[in-house]
Amino acid sequence: MAGLTTSANPDSGRTVISVDAMGGDRGPAAVVAGISLSANKNPDIAFILHGPEDELKRLVARKRNLEGRVEIRDAPDVVSMEDKPRDVIRRGKSTSMWSALESVRSGEADGVVSCGNTGALMMLSVVRLRKILGVHRPAIAILWPSRSPQGFNIMLDAGADISADEHDLLQYALMGASYARNGMELKRPRVGLLNVGTEEHKGRNELKLAHDLIAQNASIANYDFVGFVEGNDIPGNRADVIVTDGFTGNVALKTGEGTASLIGSLLREAFKFSPLSRLAALMAYTSLNRLNKRIDPRRVNGGVFLGLNGTVVKSHGSSDETGVSSAVKLAFKLAQSGFSEKLAARVASAVSLPQDAENTNE
Amino acid sequence: MAGLTTSANPDSGRTVISVDAMGGDRGPAAVVAGISLSANKNPDIAFILHGPEDELKRLVARKRNLEGRVEIRDAPDVVSMEDKPRDVIRRGKSTSMWSALESVRSGEADGVVSCGNTGALMMLSVVRLRKILGVHRPAIAILWPSRSPQGFNIMLDAGADISADEHDLLQYALMGASYARNGMELKRPRVGLLNVGTEEHKGRNELKLAHDLIAQNASIANYDFVGFVEGNDIPGNRADVIVTDGFTGNVALKTGEGTASLIGSLLREAFKFSPLSRLAALMAYTSLNRLNKRIDPRRVNGGVFLGLNGTVVKSHGSSDETGVSSAVKLAFKLAQSGFSEKLAARVASAVSLPQDAENTNE
Repeated sequence: MAGLTTSANPDSGRTVISVDAMGGDRGPAAVVAGISLSANKNPDIAFILHGPEDELKRLVARKRNLEGRVEIRDAPDVVSMEDKPRDVIRRGKSTSMWSALESVRSGEADGVVSCGNTGALMMLSVVRLRKILGVHRPAIAILWPSRSPQGFNIMLDAGADISADEHDLLQYALMGASYARNGMELKRPRVGLLNVGTEEHKGRNELKLAHDLIAQNASIANYDFVGFVEGNDIPGNRADVIVTDGFTGNVALKTGEGTASLIGSLLREAFKFSPLSRLAALMAYTSLNRLNKRIDPRRVNGGVFLGLNGTVVKSHGSSDETGVSSAVKLAFKLAQSGFSEKLAARVASAVSLPQDAENTNE
Repeated sequence: MAGLTTSANPDSGRTVISVDAMGGDRGPAAVVAGISLSANKNPDIAFILHGPEDELKRLVARKRNLEGRVEIRDAPDVVSMEDKPRDVIRRGKSTSMWSALESVRSGEADGVVSCGNTGALMMLSVVRLRKILGVHRPAIAILWPSRSPQGFNIMLDAGADISADEHDLLQYALMGASYARNGMELKRPRVGLLNVGTEEHKGRNELKLAHDLIAQNASIANYDFVGFVEGNDIPGNRADVIVTDGFTGNVALKTGEGTASLIGSLLREAFKFSPLSRLAALMAYTSLNRLNKRIDPRRVNGGVFLGLNGTVVKSHGSSDETGVSSAVKLAFKLAQSGFSEKLAARVASAVSLPQDAENTNE
């Protein structure tokens, strides 16, 4: 391990976040700017940064506040957005993504952040960090702007796996509730199961079974089960945690993003229409900015991989420094709360429930 | 059939739309106001209106422009939003919904509009109008504000059925393309199949099979197949017709609606924040109005039921007069284009394709 420019100093008491500098659309400069932002705001974080040593050295040297806070690990190769996950597992040892996960695996870092290829990051995380005992399918949990008091809901699975049976859906409920407690300070999160309607004739069979399993575990796992919810409840105020399979979750996430982005474009167009509307836009600048902050995807950046031995935060591929910084903040928060260990204990306690048929599945 | 106040006059050359006056959240007054709006704009429409005779007579009498344009059919009962579809089929003969469909079945009307219970309307439509020969699962097609040149994309199935195999998905592609040609004047619509990613490892099996079937039929059925698309393409400009199963489609639809509604609320909040922002909102009024018109769900109101012998337009349950009027306009347009017959011919021609395994399914 060459490339030690400065030490993250294990005796400093800082929480160490491992950061994959490569693989994002904006390159390592945006990532380094992001961790510099985080370092400014939070004196308790140190970083291990992974990527081509010379390039990273230059970038880090330009940020005075990173002195003594960053250790660089040389990794010459990059996982591209086009790489197939299986190829990365076979031939990806020299990549920054692999190296970044290794720091968590070895215990040197308390969490990892990457802007790279989601499929590859998930598969590599499963292979290198391993699933928590009792977890069948890990999930990606994302935050969604909502009408809930905390301003955001958690939805999972956002696309780790294309299918989920009733036992997987129960585990998503347990993991999502645990995330809500540790990432959002919700003592007793409301959990909803995504469906197309509440009429009895409408549900798929695995959803009916999951409904009963999630209801049975509510008391021991310390959440409120609100039953079936619909797509409009993802940005709503009926549940804090919305549970669904990764196919449906991914379509919902991208549909929501696409709709928000279309409205944003149309809003800009509308304000460009006439001199008067341009003036109005100027006057409305602060108001619109306030709105933007509320729904800005960069400020809720970070899909969290749940069900693994270690905290993995997937930052959006197009993250700029603000996006990277909020992903780092999330990784820090979860690492500090001992989230990964608490989640493991929660899953283990549910698996042992006598009325829970899940053991037959493992 | 009592309740003939004035005659829709079959010799007038007008297109007759059968309208269920009941079952919407705003009651029959909104429906009557809506058809009055349509009657004003379009001299070529006449109506058969279904519901409690006395109430409808009073409402219609207040709208001078409806004189000679509306025939009332007495139906004392209403299908409520809570009624189970199966119960409606067993005991719903005296409802306005049943009566409204009957006018299409008998050939008196060229299309039907209802704001009522979607599940009941679909099931009743299938039982009373029957599926087109060769169609296995009828679908609900909706319009979605998009970046496409025509301003809207078609998505189906939006929730008629919770599952769809590859043969159903092919039929959705054929029916959606036919709708795009007749409802949107797109000569050669672009068709996309909804998935979570284009990587080969990601797809469900029925989606891979549907991909090949839809590709094979593109030339003979006169559409361009753009392959797999993702959630963000529903409001995008890659496809005019987005094909998916009814579970995924319904979640996507409601997620999009919920997200748009949340942004609208936050926008209003942002503009109420300070005296300056309130002034800005006043000045921006025209711009915001322009935006509203573009994405207003009332202006693209109307899920169309595809695959039935007859044109059925489902208006949103909360439709006001603008919403009802745009649903009527859509029913009129489709009836005039002979859409139902063209669609039947299209499906029949695809079924007979030798490379199409679909026959085994019927």
